[in-house]
Amino acid sequence: MKVGILTIGNELTSGKTQDTNSSYIARELVQRGWQMAGTLSVGDDDEAIKDGLDYILSRADAVIVTGGLGPTVDDITTAAIARAYNRKLFTDEATLNHIKERFERAKLNWTNNNAKQAEFPEGAEVIPNPAGTAAGFALKVGDKLITVIPGVPMEARRMLTEGVIPVLIKAFPEEPHHLERRIIKTFGLAEAAVDQKVADIDLASLGVGIGFYPNFPEIQVVLTIRDADEAKAKKNLKQAEDQVVSRLKDHIFGYDQDTLEGVCAALLTEKKRTLAVAESLTGGFLTDRLTDIPGSSVYLERGVVTYSNASKTDLLGVPAEIINEFGAVSAETARLMAEGVRKLGKTDIGISTTGIAGPTGGTEKKPVGTVFIALADKDKTYCRQYGYRWDRRRIKMITTQALLLMLKRYLTGELTDE
Amino acid sequence: MKVGILTIGNELTSGKTQDTNSSYIARELVQRGWQMAGTLSVGDDDEAIKDGLDYILSRADAVIVTGGLGPTVDDITTAAIARAYNRKLFTDEATLNHIKERFERAKLNWTNNNAKQAEFPEGAEVIPNPAGTAAGFALKVGDKLITVIPGVPMEARRMLTEGVIPVLIKAFPEEPHHLERRIIKTFGLAEAAVDQKVADIDLASLGVGIGFYPNFPEIQVVLTIRDADEAKAKKNLKQAEDQVVSRLKDHIFGYDQDTLEGVCAALLTEKKRTLAVAESLTGGFLTDRLTDIPGSSVYLERGVVTYSNASKTDLLGVPAEIINEFGAVSAETARLMAEGVRKLGKTDIGISTTGIAGPTGGTEKKPVGTVFIALADKDKTYCRQYGYRWDRRRIKMITTQALLLMLKRYLTGELTDE
Repeated sequence: MKVGILTIGNELTSGKTQDTNSSYIARELVQRGWQMAGTLSVGDDDEAIKDGLDYILSRADAVIVTGGLGPTVDDITTAAIARAYNRKLFTDEATLNHIKERFERAKLNWTNNNAKQAEFPEGAEVIPNPAGTAAGFALKVGDKLITVIPGVPMEARRMLTEGVIPVLIKAFPEEPHHLERRIIKTFGLAEAAVDQKVADIDLASLGVGIGFYPNFPEIQVVLTIRDADEAKAKKNLKQAEDQVVSRLKDHIFGYDQDTLEGVCAALLTEKKRTLAVAESLTGGFLTDRLTDIPGSSVYLERGVVTYSNASKTDLLGVPAEIINEFGAVSAETARLMAEGVRKLGKTDIGISTTGIAGPTGGTEKKPVGTVFIALADKDKTYCRQYGYRWDRRRIKMITTQALLLMLKRYLTGELTDE
Repeated sequence: MKVGILTIGNELTSGKTQDTNSSYIARELVQRGWQMAGTLSVGDDDEAIKDGLDYILSRADAVIVTGGLGPTVDDITTAAIARAYNRKLFTDEATLNHIKERFERAKLNWTNNNAKQAEFPEGAEVIPNPAGTAAGFALKVGDKLITVIPGVPMEARRMLTEGVIPVLIKAFPEEPHHLERRIIKTFGLAEAAVDQKVADIDLASLGVGIGFYPNFPEIQVVLTIRDADEAKAKKNLKQAEDQVVSRLKDHIFGYDQDTLEGVCAALLTEKKRTLAVAESLTGGFLTDRLTDIPGSSVYLERGVVTYSNASKTDLLGVPAEIINEFGAVSAETARLMAEGVRKLGKTDIGISTTGIAGPTGGTEKKPVGTVFIALADKDKTYCRQYGYRWDRRRIKMITTQALLLMLKRYLTGELTDE
């Protein structure tokens, strides 16, 4: 089956908003073994929408449309599709109630234009939106299928998996096959280096495909196999995975839906260890990631963002003389930060970051991107230094990743002295 | 003039690489007052490229093509365009020499496939690549113009400005006009409510267009005008802006390139006020946002993430009895957190968040999404309660936004007791 993507919105064609939906959608479909006909982006314009649908549907079996499902006058996707295929609009009561309930719960004032979001072209099947007010729909036109979801990425992604893909499978039942997929998540190697480390593994004879997807600061390695024989597919995929994992071992932090913070959270919970965090460079980003995991209060005792030197002394007990002698950005300070926060938080583990995020503040000896991270338990303190060449945000991001990987390796007993 | 974009590459249609060129190109062109016909993305396929060019050129005066100019066999853009319009290829000697020189300087071995990058369709004007080996070109086809640049973002951006835009201006000398644009950034109203508040303003008679761009948790209102008379365009836009601003006043946090954290940072710096942050619910996210602004160490003394009750007592001096009586999620605790962090950080202002991010931990009286934020100075403490219906991440996100808006309003003297 061949699928095209149509993204709708003046904010996309004018370059105001960066579309991230279409690459996500394409990846999900390609990994399921479907072919892509291409992606077209047009403005909130009746004619352009009809035209774009014609273009894609003359080259594909189905189209996934995103965007233009909001309640305002410039959101015209539903109406434009209805007009393009001569359908009237109907109001779906279940959707209308769902929207009204969301308004009530959020204590927002109801205005009648919001009812527009419960209207669909006749003959359409509603695709519910569990995360927002803009429901989607699927509409069969001849032997082609049009599916429509909102442009908000968080909602689009969930509705793709839960709504669109099942509808596509139902509408285009394929020859029986099993798709097996394994995502191996790595950090610390460039894409070319990951590629090179696994290049000579004979995956082709196993029928396994491989792809590399950079997702800063990670590189994801995706293995896929399609086969009529499910047991064989699983076996071959496992064999491929074992070989790839053995080559990338030290850089792997998780699989499939894992996040590095989620892996750390699970290990801390399982091993009943408590954690305290002292951040300078990363400014709260590390604690923010850890607290994105539900239940983080079980192991996270405290986090401190000690941006001033005084707060490093006050909240962590780092002696002012150490900061004066070695600098706030130094292995000595990083170590004492991790040890201090652990002691004061009375936790099993303390972790810390310090560094220069830029764009100013660098020196010849310690340029922008100089980073120290440390981890302390009651017996020992581990410290690493890095030199990153990114912008401020990405230096913060990659540092949180490096420290979480250090924590994971500590918890699994793999962390060694440098 | 109307321009379309065609991006070429299997890595784009399969979702392996996120295309960032087209939004950049669109932005640059729209700001020059040109209209966008849309963006199409197709694979490295002869037929799809010809087809895509036809589609765009039937709707636009010119097309900007990116990608597929490399030396390898799957880079077929130049050859596909030549075939599509029955042109032979010629070798441009200046380009060939430029490529050979780059190889010599980088001490790379010359292989003959690289000469492909000096070939162009007959009649094309070469667009040099100052930053790489893949030169681009412009080809007039009837009254339409095809321009082609490489997909590497750094090279594409430079060649767009230095090569493509001058060629477009030369080919389509336009009637003089001026484009003026104003972005008004709001928070705290749903998109439909923003729309409704400004719906009866007669922008049409001023020649001003309006658009709404949700960028969670903000809604951006964009006003644009195109006119031959620059003074008139500026005057009418200002008049439109004044009316829109008067309707949305309390919810506006910035304009154009402003971020809420950037606005707060500028106000704190300008007014020489210092800040300490106590986060429970938001888990470091608020401090992370504040430290994304270079120079934040000037006003940010410390942040603490007091996830445990013990840390709220230890680091903020919130009495255990208060937490026991009113709960960690309460106005009383939020107030004492803001007051405590201000006092211990010896800063002018203290701010705090507490709440239930979910998915579990809610009660009937305090469901998931119950949030308290507070701001304390030496004289007074302000506190607000909200009930949000989002997922964990977005509850954290919207709470940081609410508190930063409170901070901004405090710093501009607009914050009142509820």
